Amino acid sequence: MKTRSILLNERPQGLPTDNTFKFKEEELPGLQEGQVLLKSLYISVDPYMRGRMSDAKSYVPPYKLHEPIMGGVVAEVIESHNAQLPQGTVVLGNLPWQTYSISDGKGLMSINPDLAPLSYHLGILGMPGLTAYCGLLIICVPKPGETVVVSGAAGAVGTVVGQIAKLKGCRVIGIAGSDDKINYLKEELGFDEAINYKSTPNIQNALAAACPNGVDVYFDNVGGEISDAVYSLLNNFARIAVCGQISLYNATSPPMGPRVEPILLKTKSLMKGFIVSDYADRFGEAAAELAGWLQEGKLQYEETIVEGFDQLPHAFLGLFKGENIGKQLVKVAEYSGS
Amino acid sequence: MKTRSILLNERPQGLPTDNTFKFKEEELPGLQEGQVLLKSLYISVDPYMRGRMSDAKSYVPPYKLHEPIMGGVVAEVIESHNAQLPQGTVVLGNLPWQTYSISDGKGLMSINPDLAPLSYHLGILGMPGLTAYCGLLIICVPKPGETVVVSGAAGAVGTVVGQIAKLKGCRVIGIAGSDDKINYLKEELGFDEAINYKSTPNIQNALAAACPNGVDVYFDNVGGEISDAVYSLLNNFARIAVCGQISLYNATSPPMGPRVEPILLKTKSLMKGFIVSDYADRFGEAAAELAGWLQEGKLQYEETIVEGFDQLPHAFLGLFKGENIGKQLVKVAEYSGS
Repeated sequence: MKTRSILLNERPQGLPTDNTFKFKEEELPGLQEGQVLLKSLYISVDPYMRGRMSDAKSYVPPYKLHEPIMGGVVAEVIESHNAQLPQGTVVLGNLPWQTYSISDGKGLMSINPDLAPLSYHLGILGMPGLTAYCGLLIICVPKPGETVVVSGAAGAVGTVVGQIAKLKGCRVIGIAGSDDKINYLKEELGFDEAINYKSTPNIQNALAAACPNGVDVYFDNVGGEISDAVYSLLNNFARIAVCGQISLYNATSPPMGPRVEPILLKTKSLMKGFIVSDYADRFGEAAAELAGWLQEGKLQYEETIVEGFDQLPHAFLGLFKGENIGKQLVKVAEYSGS
Repeated sequence: MKTRSILLNERPQGLPTDNTFKFKEEELPGLQEGQVLLKSLYISVDPYMRGRMSDAKSYVPPYKLHEPIMGGVVAEVIESHNAQLPQGTVVLGNLPWQTYSISDGKGLMSINPDLAPLSYHLGILGMPGLTAYCGLLIICVPKPGETVVVSGAAGAVGTVVGQIAKLKGCRVIGIAGSDDKINYLKEELGFDEAINYKSTPNIQNALAAACPNGVDVYFDNVGGEISDAVYSLLNNFARIAVCGQISLYNATSPPMGPRVEPILLKTKSLMKGFIVSDYADRFGEAAAELAGWLQEGKLQYEETIVEGFDQLPHAFLGLFKGENIGKQLVKVAEYSGS
C-alpha cells in the first residue's frame, strides 16, 4: 500500500509558506500483530499547530524536521490485525498527515458513526468544542446578564463559546474579520453584536458601543490589539480565558503592547491561559452536554471543508488569513461504511 | 482644639513632589452627640495612595483636591460623646492626615493595646499583613517544594509573603532594591535567595540561577521589567498574584512591555489582580493565624517609623525611592495609656 505524506520541510520564520511543507510518497510495510491500517477520512488544521512548527519550549513538543506533521484525524480501519479495532471501525486520533497510516491502536478513540457526521468529532464534539466548553464554563463562569466578548468569534472554538454564553443568558459580542462572518454570527448564531475588526475604524469605540455595561468575560483566541481594546472595558472581577493568540503566532520577535497587569489590578480581574487537556477530567460531562445541545438544536455548527489531501498546506495557511468560518477541515477520502 | 492637616494641593503628574501637599491649621468644632475626638498616634503611608491622588477611574475613589489625604491611622479617643468608644480607647480607621480629628465612630475598629505594639495594626496585623496572607494563600496556593518569587520583597507586604511561603515549605526568592534589604531578607527572614535589582547587571540571569526549578508562584508588588524577568521562568500552571505595580504608578503614559498573554498561554498560568478587601470574609481567620505565628516567633516583623506629623509627605515619597524596610509609618504622638 502506497501512502502520501506531508513532512515539515523547514521551521518557518514568521508566517509559514509552501516551503514549510514537503510532499512524499512511500510504500507502507505489511501489518504486524496488533496493528491496523488506517485510511484518513478527515484531517484537522488548527492554529496551535503553528507553535509545534517552531522548536521553542511549549506545552506540546515541536514537530520533528523531515517527519510528517501530526494532528487530529478521523480515519477508517481498512485492514486489522487488532481484535479491538476490527475492519470498518472509525477512529479519532492524533495521526500523521498521510493518506494511509499504520497504528498499534494506542490513543485511538472509536467513533459511533450514527451519532453525528464523522467530521463533527474534529470540531464541536472534539477538541475545539471541548476547548470552548471548558474554557468558558470552568475559567470564566459566566452569569446570566453578564457581557461576554469572544475574539476569533467565527472560528471553530469561538462559534461554540458564543452560543454557550447565549445559552447561559449572557449578552454576547463577537469579533471577527469579514462581513460574512459578522452576518453569520448575528443572523445564524444569535450573537447580540459582532464587530468586523478589519473594516471598523476604531475597534475600541465600536466595542464600547456594543458593551454599554462593560465586559465581564473575555474569551480570547486572538490577542494583540483586539485584546487591548477589550481590556479598556473590563468590569471589576472580570475573567479572561487566554485560549489562543493567533495574531501573534507568526511574530518573529517578542510582541510588545500596553502592559495588562495594571488593568488586572485596577479591576481585580483574573486571566488564565489553558489548553483543553488541562480539563480532561471534565471531558465526559462536557461532550455529553454538547451532544445534547446539538441534538436539541440549541447549538448551530458550521464547517469549512476543502477536498483533497493536497489542500492541507493551503487550508492550514488559510487559518492565518481568516478564511474559515467555523471549523476548518480537509476531506481526504470517503467513508466506506454506510 | 487646633488640628494640623495635610491636604491634596494638586494632582501629581508622574512622581509626587512637595507641591502635591499643603499643610493647614484649623480649629476643630466642639463634639456633638455620638462623636469622639481622636488624637492620631500612627499614620500609615502606602503605595496605593498614589492611585487616589489621580482622578482616573480606579477601585477606590480619588482624593478630593484641597481636602485632607485619607489613610490608615491608629488613634486614641481623648474625648468622647459616644458610649461605645470611651475615652482612652485605641482605634484603627481610615482617617484624615490630621493631628486630631472628629469622628462619629463609624468604620472605626477598637484595638486591644495588650495584643501587640499599636503600630502593628497598620502592618502585619492590618492591611499589609492581610494582603500578604490572602493574596498568597487564596490566589497562589503555594505547595511545599514549589518556588515562590516576591517582588518588593522588603516592603510591608513582601516581607510577610516570603515568610508565609517559607512556613508553607517553599523555596523563596525575594527581589528588592538595596544590599541592606537583601541581607535582611536572607539573614533575618530566612529567604533562600534575594536579588538586588538595582545592582544586579542582568536580573533574568540572576533569577534563573536562583530558581533552578523555575517559578511556580509570583507575588508581584512592583510590575514592569522585574516581572518580565520572572515571566521568562514560569513553570506550567504557575500562579501570579498582582498585588501592586509600584514601578508603574508614576508613569505619565500607558506603560508598554512584552505581552504576557502568550506566556500565560504557553505555561497555562493564572494571573489575578486583587485588593485585600476582596477577601474580607477571610479576615478573621487570617488575622488569627497571623497573630498566632507572630506570638510563636514564626514571623519576624520590621517597621520603619519616622517621627513627626511634618514627615508624612517625605515618608510617602520615600516609598517610591525604596527607602523603607518593612512597613513605613509616621509616629505622630505618644499613646497616653499604659
